[in-house]
Amino acid sequence: MTATPRKRIYLAGPDVFLPNAIEIAKAKQEICFWREFTGVSPSDNQLSLDKGSPFAAGLLIYEQNIKLMNSCDLIVANMTPFRGPSMDVGTAFELGYMAAQSKPLFGYSNDGRFYTDRVIDSGGGRDPEGLTIESFGMHDNLMLEGAISSSGGFFKTQRIASMEKHYYTDLTMFEEIIKIITELM
Amino acid sequence: MTATPRKRIYLAGPDVFLPNAIEIAKAKQEICFWREFTGVSPSDNQLSLDKGSPFAAGLLIYEQNIKLMNSCDLIVANMTPFRGPSMDVGTAFELGYMAAQSKPLFGYSNDGRFYTDRVIDSGGGRDPEGLTIESFGMHDNLMLEGAISSSGGFFKTQRIASMEKHYYTDLTMFEEIIKIITELM
Repeated sequence: MTATPRKRIYLAGPDVFLPNAIEIAKAKQEICFWREFTGVSPSDNQLSLDKGSPFAAGLLIYEQNIKLMNSCDLIVANMTPFRGPSMDVGTAFELGYMAAQSKPLFGYSNDGRFYTDRVIDSGGGRDPEGLTIESFGMHDNLMLEGAISSSGGFFKTQRIASMEKHYYTDLTMFEEIIKIITELM
Repeated sequence: MTATPRKRIYLAGPDVFLPNAIEIAKAKQEICFWREFTGVSPSDNQLSLDKGSPFAAGLLIYEQNIKLMNSCDLIVANMTPFRGPSMDVGTAFELGYMAAQSKPLFGYSNDGRFYTDRVIDSGGGRDPEGLTIESFGMHDNLMLEGAISSSGGFFKTQRIASMEKHYYTDLTMFEEIIKIITELM
């Protein structure tokens, strides 16, 4: 009898910028473990970044994250808005990277509102600078939720106010997504 | 004698949200044409979106953009900050998508500052919410400039104040990038 190898899930999100980044990564990995997945976090990287320029260090982290993504079967992204009405751009990049590899994409957000409802409308569906506000009944730019839907994945949201302490860290939606993946695979 | 087919460049950016999106796309395509490239813009999509839900329309646009990207040899992204300190998330997704296909990535920004200098530092390299501010001598999240550098591409910036009318539309950096690509290919 051969054990089926556990599917590897890339844990993407602005979680890496949290003061308790390691703790959150571990909590996510535990949830994955209970459901018989391996959670893979950019916080797992063991890099010595003390040599070379800051740019070289950034490039090294990039290359390590690419290796981690290549080793994973699917991605679960924290798409909670980050420093503006949209999600973290590094995480958006990672969704695109996994989409091109035809891997299933999953995401969650702790801001349940549609994108249209997060950007100030100065009239006619345009922002104060006159730029069009997307309005497709999606929670962010259509390339993101479009990609998730097209990959056969799922996107879950709940509404936590952004001033709440657990806005970035609440894992209720993350747990739901992992449960859904268990049922699908 | 067989003519070499022109390389196809995917023109990514928040340009699609500009009031004069079509005009800007045409201006970029002309610059590409002079240098013997074909500029491919999401604005070229001829879709009938009047049937179905807004979500279905968004999904259709997603699928068309994916087809356009698959048909292109490289990408040039407008990475000027959009509604916050970072670039447009749809464009970030597209950079990730092209990176996974091992295509060369190029980008430009009309905001020449490093990311660190665009986010308010409340002390210790953290923002007012206590989240770490990346500091790698890069202009945005390391996944973006890391990907460009790693692909052998180039990133060019100039500094235009965001209140200036030509913040999103100035094509000086775009022209420089196209010139660089001409020299490389």
